[in-house]
Amino acid sequence: MSEKKPIDSLTIMTELVLPNDTNLFGNLMGGRLMYWMDIAAALAAHKHCNAPVVTASVDNISFEAPIKLGNVVHIEAKISRAFNSSMEIHLKVWGEDLTQQYKYKSNEAFYTFVALDPNRKPRIVPTLVPETEEDKKVFEGALRRRQVRLILGGKMKPKDAAELRALFVND
Amino acid sequence: MSEKKPIDSLTIMTELVLPNDTNLFGNLMGGRLMYWMDIAAALAAHKHCNAPVVTASVDNISFEAPIKLGNVVHIEAKISRAFNSSMEIHLKVWGEDLTQQYKYKSNEAFYTFVALDPNRKPRIVPTLVPETEEDKKVFEGALRRRQVRLILGGKMKPKDAAELRALFVND
Amino acid sequence: MSEKKPIDSLTIMTELVLPNDTNLFGNLMGGRLMYWMDIAAALAAHKHCNAPVVTASVDNISFEAPIKLGNVVHIEAKISRAFNSSMEIHLKVWGEDLTQQYKYKSNEAFYTFVALDPNRKPRIVPTLVPETEEDKKVFEGALRRRQVRLILGGKMKPKDAAELRALFVND
Amino acid sequence: MSEKKPIDSLTIMTELVLPNDTNLFGNLMGGRLMYWMDIAAALAAHKHCNAPVVTASVDNISFEAPIKLGNVVHIEAKISRAFNSSMEIHLKVWGEDLTQQYKYKSNEAFYTFVALDPNRKPRIVPTLVPETEEDKKVFEGALRRRQVRLILGGKMKPKDAAELRALFVND
Amino acid sequence: MSEKKPIDSLTIMTELVLPNDTNLFGNLMGGRLMYWMDIAAALAAHKHCNAPVVTASVDNISFEAPIKLGNVVHIEAKISRAFNSSMEIHLKVWGEDLTQQYKYKSNEAFYTFVALDPNRKPRIVPTLVPETEEDKKVFEGALRRRQVRLILGGKMKPKDAAELRALFVND
Amino acid sequence: MSEKKPIDSLTIMTELVLPNDTNLFGNLMGGRLMYWMDIAAALAAHKHCNAPVVTASVDNISFEAPIKLGNVVHIEAKISRAFNSSMEIHLKVWGEDLTQQYKYKSNEAFYTFVALDPNRKPRIVPTLVPETEEDKKVFEGALRRRQVRLILGGKMKPKDAAELRALFVND
Repeated sequence: MSEKKPIDSLTIMTELVLPNDTNLFGNLMGGRLMYWMDIAAALAAHKHCNAPVVTASVDNISFEAPIKLGNVVHIEAKISRAFNSSMEIHLKVWGEDLTQQYKYKSNEAFYTFVALDPNRKPRIVPTLVPETEEDKKVFEGALRRRQVRLILGGKMKPKDAAELRALFVND
Repeated sequence: MSEKKPIDSLTIMTELVLPNDTNLFGNLMGGRLMYWMDIAAALAAHKHCNAPVVTASVDNISFEAPIKLGNVVHIEAKISRAFNSSMEIHLKVWGEDLTQQYKYKSNEAFYTFVALDPNRKPRIVPTLVPETEEDKKVFEGALRRRQVRLILGGKMKPKDAAELRALFVND
Repeated sequence: MSEKKPIDSLTIMTELVLPNDTNLFGNLMGGRLMYWMDIAAALAAHKHCNAPVVTASVDNISFEAPIKLGNVVHIEAKISRAFNSSMEIHLKVWGEDLTQQYKYKSNEAFYTFVALDPNRKPRIVPTLVPETEEDKKVFEGALRRRQVRLILGGKMKPKDAAELRALFVND
Repeated sequence: MSEKKPIDSLTIMTELVLPNDTNLFGNLMGGRLMYWMDIAAALAAHKHCNAPVVTASVDNISFEAPIKLGNVVHIEAKISRAFNSSMEIHLKVWGEDLTQQYKYKSNEAFYTFVALDPNRKPRIVPTLVPETEEDKKVFEGALRRRQVRLILGGKMKPKDAAELRALFVND
Repeated sequence: MSEKKPIDSLTIMTELVLPNDTNLFGNLMGGRLMYWMDIAAALAAHKHCNAPVVTASVDNISFEAPIKLGNVVHIEAKISRAFNSSMEIHLKVWGEDLTQQYKYKSNEAFYTFVALDPNRKPRIVPTLVPETEEDKKVFEGALRRRQVRLILGGKMKPKDAAELRALFVND
Repeated sequence: MSEKKPIDSLTIMTELVLPNDTNLFGNLMGGRLMYWMDIAAALAAHKHCNAPVVTASVDNISFEAPIKLGNVVHIEAKISRAFNSSMEIHLKVWGEDLTQQYKYKSNEAFYTFVALDPNRKPRIVPTLVPETEEDKKVFEGALRRRQVRLILGGKMKPKDAAELRALFVND
């Protein structure tokens, strides 16, 4: 199978915030959330390529609303673009207070995974064909995010990042 | 005390990679590492401002070398720049195989924390005065990284990011 | 709100089987799975009644297929019937080998929760109105399962369990 | 050895309820207790047959008294009847507040395990010979409980469950 | 109640060695065992004095036989002597391979706990009256072990440790 | 390499006290601290001999100041003396309240580890050459502590412990 849709990799994770997940304010620690997001993203990537995967990078994450002890964490992960052997995963995270029936956005993030063959070398993954309008929008942004990653990782010079350069020069 | 040095917040964490921290390849999962990094960074920020802190954001992290089961994780965290109520923490992570006497760079990252007063409102933190050449270099880069964060968070337009714009236009 | 539908409480949980969850055969331990099921069921019950809940009982569970280390556990929980202050939750559990694209039924179960008010006394919960054919079927079986629970708990005599008695006498 | 007594498999487990084991009321979560019970029962079954075992099923459990944070959980497990390759384990659970010198019954349960040979196939286990009056009573009830399990698992029709049928028809 | 017997505080703990408890040889880590022993000893001390307790000290422990992954740890703890507000707890630890029916001594240890009143100040505990020959023997050795603790803690000079001095001078 | 210095094995560990690490007073449990100390000491020993190690014994530990929930634990471990195949590790532990800028001594301890070859047999370790005055002092005390261990372990008679005997006889 050489083509897959974003929905094929959709992974829904639900976690309850327990005492050991919280800081002194009784709020979920950022690191615990990134741990859960890493697993959700790994499962989505694994589903897309049907091969073991490893985390290659995580894009800038900003934590908007604290999630309280006893609240629920909802994580939705699905692949947003496939490159040769790497996959970008789009994650959305919400908190929810089930007693108050209050659900709130916590953050959004992009994790990148690489698929490995049995010798632990990168292997080709299926192409992603976006379907919905939202899928297409994140698919298109993926090139720009990839340039940010390459520049921040010191593997590309800003002047060579055509997609990104346009934002600054023509804006 | 209104001024502090980076060395005042230096936090050194050492962790042993246990079975439950690893994926099917027997390598440390990225999410578990981000969890430990979040705690190391929180301690460094807490040390700088002597007040409780919460994770505000995490910059792009790229994972370069896998860390194996039974290897050691070394994390060094210290504050790289203080803003009004927020602090940017610079983290360096190494893996080490103690039997083979082999220590290797895993990744480098920047976490941002906000100091809170007893009412959970942001509070002023001491200024950071960099000392060494390396401290000064990461201190200067902090403005540019902050613009990246603001742009990625939708709180600044690329054309207003003077520091960043220079990289693309004049390079 | 005095009436709710099963779909309103649907809770989807996805967990990855890690080394510490497994026995010497490398298979998920039954007790770890019941722990996850308890949390999924509690969240579904909490969603239905918007009040804190506690586990009252768990019906007979039989474990059909072992779930391997590195496989994924899918749990779907939704309320199957509401009584005065108690709710019966229907859970379905699958394992999945993402590399082999093989998803298999692990088990099905019924947990019962009680809603508590701030004084920790039982409180009235909304009525459940089943919608789909499947919802209606499990809704109808709930009375019979409740009689089994009461008999096994020594709170009802077999001869008073009309629903259940019919199965044995007229079959 | 082809015969064993219940006392030969007696397993006594004592656990302290820590913060992460509790719900928002500060009481032990049902799922955590079932996790501990599963391990206690597995050890008792393993002791009886001197072979690795896996959880086959768990009978209806009803939770009678909440066990508080900081209280102690006492679990006693011993085999109640052996069939060909499966063993029924009888568990009794108490909570205890050591400061108040107050010990209370929490629940009673039956778990069933299957013994496996090195090829992971079911293997014959020693016969159980009950000794005390209480041992004999639970031994005798085992056939009836087994019929309940088979009926609930869809592997027996109510009309063929002679032991069980008697309860409803002649009572 | 001002007097109690050793048997009144007997605490039996049984733990299964899971992957995360083991080192690279697949053997239980010493630190994990000392963690379980601390809890068993705390429960025995709590039972003796019916008040919360804190660990004051741990005597020399030597680990004699490695306990393997999947083996069982048996811990027996009971109070060996009571002083004013402190209690010495005697622990015995065995490992067991249930498949091979092989049970072996792992170590023996003495932990000391202090009872606290609601203001967190030391409080008087009941006297211990030893019953069996073995109880009496460990009861008598307690004075000598206490002198070792005081000398090692820098709170007594060797020449003032009459009990201990006799061993070296007259032996 | 047949000689090493204490500084070569220095291991610095920093841990945050989370809810599940604490007792009912909200203080770090002694057993959890001994678990962390065991890992820090194992890493220091592993660094000295570049071979896997196992815990052989732990000397008397006395807990002086409680470490509170949310405080930081600092552990410094380095080798204090090497014998044939065993190494004595010296540990110092502090607690720290980062908000109050208050750092306090918790305890000091000596753990002994044995280096193992691939067949799990003891193997020769490098000699330790102490450098600083403090290093030399703990190095010299090591013989005396070893005699205490041998006597307490029943492997030496008090009268044969020349170093120790001198303390009692000539003091």
